[in-house]
Amino acid sequence: MKALVYHGPGDKSWDTVADPKLDDDTDVIVKIDTVTICGTDLHILKGDVPEVKAGRVLGHEAVGTVLETGSGVHSVREGDRLLLSCISACGRCTFCRRGQYGQCRNGGGWILGHLIDGVQAEYARIPFADTSTYKVPKALNDDQVLYLADILPTGYEVGVRNGRVEPGDTVVVIGAGPIGLATILGARLFSPASIIAVDPSASRRAAATRFGADHVVAPSEAKELVDLRTGGLGADVTIEAVGVPEAFEQCCELVRPGGHVANVGVHGQPVTLHLETLWIKDVTITTGLVDTSSTPTLLSLVESGQIDPTVFTTHAFALDQAMEAYDTFAHADATDALKVAMRA
Amino acid sequence: MKALVYHGPGDKSWDTVADPKLDDDTDVIVKIDTVTICGTDLHILKGDVPEVKAGRVLGHEAVGTVLETGSGVHSVREGDRLLLSCISACGRCTFCRRGQYGQCRNGGGWILGHLIDGVQAEYARIPFADTSTYKVPKALNDDQVLYLADILPTGYEVGVRNGRVEPGDTVVVIGAGPIGLATILGARLFSPASIIAVDPSASRRAAATRFGADHVVAPSEAKELVDLRTGGLGADVTIEAVGVPEAFEQCCELVRPGGHVANVGVHGQPVTLHLETLWIKDVTITTGLVDTSSTPTLLSLVESGQIDPTVFTTHAFALDQAMEAYDTFAHADATDALKVAMRA
Amino acid sequence: MKALVYHGPGDKSWDTVADPKLDDDTDVIVKIDTVTICGTDLHILKGDVPEVKAGRVLGHEAVGTVLETGSGVHSVREGDRLLLSCISACGRCTFCRRGQYGQCRNGGGWILGHLIDGVQAEYARIPFADTSTYKVPKALNDDQVLYLADILPTGYEVGVRNGRVEPGDTVVVIGAGPIGLATILGARLFSPASIIAVDPSASRRAAATRFGADHVVAPSEAKELVDLRTGGLGADVTIEAVGVPEAFEQCCELVRPGGHVANVGVHGQPVTLHLETLWIKDVTITTGLVDTSSTPTLLSLVESGQIDPTVFTTHAFALDQAMEAYDTFAHADATDALKVAMRA
Amino acid sequence: MKALVYHGPGDKSWDTVADPKLDDDTDVIVKIDTVTICGTDLHILKGDVPEVKAGRVLGHEAVGTVLETGSGVHSVREGDRLLLSCISACGRCTFCRRGQYGQCRNGGGWILGHLIDGVQAEYARIPFADTSTYKVPKALNDDQVLYLADILPTGYEVGVRNGRVEPGDTVVVIGAGPIGLATILGARLFSPASIIAVDPSASRRAAATRFGADHVVAPSEAKELVDLRTGGLGADVTIEAVGVPEAFEQCCELVRPGGHVANVGVHGQPVTLHLETLWIKDVTITTGLVDTSSTPTLLSLVESGQIDPTVFTTHAFALDQAMEAYDTFAHADATDALKVAMRA
Repeated sequence: MKALVYHGPGDKSWDTVADPKLDDDTDVIVKIDTVTICGTDLHILKGDVPEVKAGRVLGHEAVGTVLETGSGVHSVREGDRLLLSCISACGRCTFCRRGQYGQCRNGGGWILGHLIDGVQAEYARIPFADTSTYKVPKALNDDQVLYLADILPTGYEVGVRNGRVEPGDTVVVIGAGPIGLATILGARLFSPASIIAVDPSASRRAAATRFGADHVVAPSEAKELVDLRTGGLGADVTIEAVGVPEAFEQCCELVRPGGHVANVGVHGQPVTLHLETLWIKDVTITTGLVDTSSTPTLLSLVESGQIDPTVFTTHAFALDQAMEAYDTFAHADATDALKVAMRA
Repeated sequence: MKALVYHGPGDKSWDTVADPKLDDDTDVIVKIDTVTICGTDLHILKGDVPEVKAGRVLGHEAVGTVLETGSGVHSVREGDRLLLSCISACGRCTFCRRGQYGQCRNGGGWILGHLIDGVQAEYARIPFADTSTYKVPKALNDDQVLYLADILPTGYEVGVRNGRVEPGDTVVVIGAGPIGLATILGARLFSPASIIAVDPSASRRAAATRFGADHVVAPSEAKELVDLRTGGLGADVTIEAVGVPEAFEQCCELVRPGGHVANVGVHGQPVTLHLETLWIKDVTITTGLVDTSSTPTLLSLVESGQIDPTVFTTHAFALDQAMEAYDTFAHADATDALKVAMRA
Repeated sequence: MKALVYHGPGDKSWDTVADPKLDDDTDVIVKIDTVTICGTDLHILKGDVPEVKAGRVLGHEAVGTVLETGSGVHSVREGDRLLLSCISACGRCTFCRRGQYGQCRNGGGWILGHLIDGVQAEYARIPFADTSTYKVPKALNDDQVLYLADILPTGYEVGVRNGRVEPGDTVVVIGAGPIGLATILGARLFSPASIIAVDPSASRRAAATRFGADHVVAPSEAKELVDLRTGGLGADVTIEAVGVPEAFEQCCELVRPGGHVANVGVHGQPVTLHLETLWIKDVTITTGLVDTSSTPTLLSLVESGQIDPTVFTTHAFALDQAMEAYDTFAHADATDALKVAMRA
Repeated sequence: MKALVYHGPGDKSWDTVADPKLDDDTDVIVKIDTVTICGTDLHILKGDVPEVKAGRVLGHEAVGTVLETGSGVHSVREGDRLLLSCISACGRCTFCRRGQYGQCRNGGGWILGHLIDGVQAEYARIPFADTSTYKVPKALNDDQVLYLADILPTGYEVGVRNGRVEPGDTVVVIGAGPIGLATILGARLFSPASIIAVDPSASRRAAATRFGADHVVAPSEAKELVDLRTGGLGADVTIEAVGVPEAFEQCCELVRPGGHVANVGVHGQPVTLHLETLWIKDVTITTGLVDTSSTPTLLSLVESGQIDPTVFTTHAFALDQAMEAYDTFAHADATDALKVAMRA
């Protein structure tokens, strides 16, 4: 089959590779129907994720159709159209039994396109299929569910739920890239009084407005705006959706006493935590990898029209145009790409 | 001054009575600007609330302006325009310190128009003013905040929060009178997948649709609809907003295993609880008098445009037309009245 | 093999029956090492649980050793010594993924000795073994873990956790049979200020004192004692551990405003819920079948010596004395039996 | 009167100063009966708390008797014996109404011996008396309640409740000074499987054992012990009770995925937060000043014998020996002092 293969930092190609085969009895083999690219894939290509070895097929967000099922698969059947979650869950370990699938101790967690071959390919092997995939409701098309593989549950669980957004809150989201926008979309579900999006890029700020931010501002002006909107008290919830120290530290600066700081960004270096001012401030800081435990809820919200994930798709390609899709996505500054869909 | 006085079951009049005076150092005297009538006032007039004695000025929902403050009042000043909450809170007892103002042990709770003279009058004495009133933001008019005195926090706290409505939920609200409609308005804030309103009256069902219900149905057809929408499982949350045994029992019948039944209605008789089927069903049943602890949140939601309470006002009167206002409100079947506003 | 077989109301015997066989790939076959009898088994024998058909092997609480595993079993191995939970969990349905195993939609829940043959036998088939059994730590003997199959998680989850017992609380437990005693043991873990056990039987009240109740009282005197201990306010938490209307109704009478009523008892008929007084009282009432989701926690507490479940074993028998064991357990009034252990 | 007066860094004396007078109508004047010294007082004396000005009477933990009440005081009466909380609460601001008294916006919070004169004196003015003091139950002596002024609620609220200690948990407390010991005492209330106390001082580790720690260890050996006890996973809850970067950073290192880090220590400088490893670990980090909202609960636990705070008193002095008391407390290394009580 054809697949997008990582060959080491800066090096990828659309190659012919061996077809995937059932490896464990809980695996299924799927034909990929629609797949997308994550910001994390770009990090891998920069060499920032050293556990990803040369020769690895990338990709962890797709919709596919089941071709073959292992003997230990019970709920999934041949022909099922599935949302393939970025997180695999054994369903048996202590963490999976608490719904913390991202922390699975039996070989699950984030493995697709990371520790095993991923889904930017014609076919893929999906482990722990019973507990790592979701049947796509008939009424929904692929684009309506594709972003439930990663970006929407990430924003919702790690940003909005961890941050405990409540009706009437002032919420600050730092970073208006795809994950920040998913967080804004998720925060709207709880009717905050206002969402303030912070980003240095004017086009991203414009996107934030389209996704439901009430106010948008550059980082250097964020403190003034938050103070103005909250009488100098600070925001109820601040959410880091970038992954750099400045953004996290600004979250800690903008939060009110008793407020929540939810970190969503993937960080590559330590940050400075100003405990000399924060120790007295009753703040709660959370971190987290997505569990995708909210996927059934999000599917229900898409079905009922409460959220419309198709707004993320700015560009579409055929699956065999994967190299062009990467180019478009990697140069979002020039292309204004949010998410690119590749269709088989 | 003039006031609406209860003279015993079936008997009320717009009378001249003595002006209210400061009684305790935490009291304020207010001039009433806008006031409304509650379904509970009709119950009082039927003689259903025997603690209300003849001679009592009725009313517990109003906006007013401060004329005079007791020596122990610290936050409220002469000239302040105040939302007068239906619940008075001493602010010092164990319950008040937990935010459960409705259960105040020092003479607070629901007292206005019940145990002391109320606010359907030209002037009123408001006890515990520092902890029982809210300054009205300048940008808001009286109708925008009037229903935050009782009906909106009741629906929000006792219905929606007690019922733990979550994004994606199926929510059933039984009863589409004013309190049921307030519950629907509050439930919307949490983005349920669908709200099903149940009421025998076609005009109330139509109102429910205007207030945000996704489906409306007569009681006899509710089970079929809920089963259809939930694959036979039952609703995540069912909310009783009537106050009769049939409505409560239907809530218990329509809730799914693991779901929540929130009682909002005021009941005059016992109900049958089918523990022989419910014991195994993991249900949570809650009751409650409003605390109005959510008033700051609701004010913030009105200010930010997330909720618009003015949709409740179907009829308006001058304050000295209080008798006509009662007639209109008491015959809602004929007048389609939801709430009537009386303005000084 | 030999097993305790139900032949219809009032009729049971220790019979020779066919050995169990693997039926589904997630099954294991175990040799029963130690097993006990539940109050529910007595209900079955009275004919109160009509889903139990004649010919059924009873029993849902045991420790056993694995003889054979299905091809789809991943965590459990031949030779493992297992706690066999009264609740079977498919691990894949919506309810299991939330930890609500008691509500499993794929054929789990309470099935052992109910819908399929149980564990009062020499051997048993255990479905969904990966997600329905727990390895017994080497340092623990069978009696230390046996009651974690049902009675201890029931008291802990359905009584103590649902009732939200907190440090400093006044807790009332109505019923001091085995399940009430398990509830008392579990409540102690949260350091309430006092636990009041209510039971008409003096010997059960004595047992309650041994299990950690601070005060014991007959039902007719409970209100006076609770009022005395709480200044007339009522208890923070009341727990029904009997299963009759009077006990539930007394729980509702003894709870304070804002308190919790947790129903643990199995009810065969409806109760009267006095909403005419409770509607205003901010009470939370919960029901529930045990999920056994707390088993890992309880195992950790037994290992660390925080709880000692062996105090439940008042009588021990050989497995082939099952008929005598039933006699002893069924006549607890005369024998003072709490739980009887049968050992292979 | 006589009082312990701060005259600038390193300089204090037992001086004659003016008697306190009622300043606001919510004040009371108390005669101090028993008072203690806090580690924070030593920080002030080092000049670490620059808001404390020369001439300030120190002290924020005492039991006293009311001599005089302001006209706006309602619950407190002359002659009442009161626990004087380290936190003053106006009872009216948004934060006080949520129980977050430490964040009071109307001049409350930590003010005694900080922004206004404190309680290491013969007499003291106590603001907001109705909402900042607690009547001492008759059956309790001063030493039984004295430490409920600060150290016990601090350990309980900021350490144990913020850290969400649960039955069966492995809890690490870093720092076995008085506040760490209070945290251990509080953690015991929730029946963790084990409490591991970490401190470089052998005598403090011995104290930790007396206060209920199951294991004690020097910082350099903590990781090995925690790994051993948790199979390499890490502790469920880690609590910082020192106030230095190394201790906080070790908390972050020792916590398991999905665990809680509760900071109790007062920090004077920033710390490094290793988000490059923590971002994926689902950790929750909390900070906080005590609110003393748990005081009624803690009083109930002392009354019922669940906790015995008198174990903190290692040395006692007459009030006019305040200078000697400071010497003893400041040289805890030599004196093994935990808390010193000064009695009028």
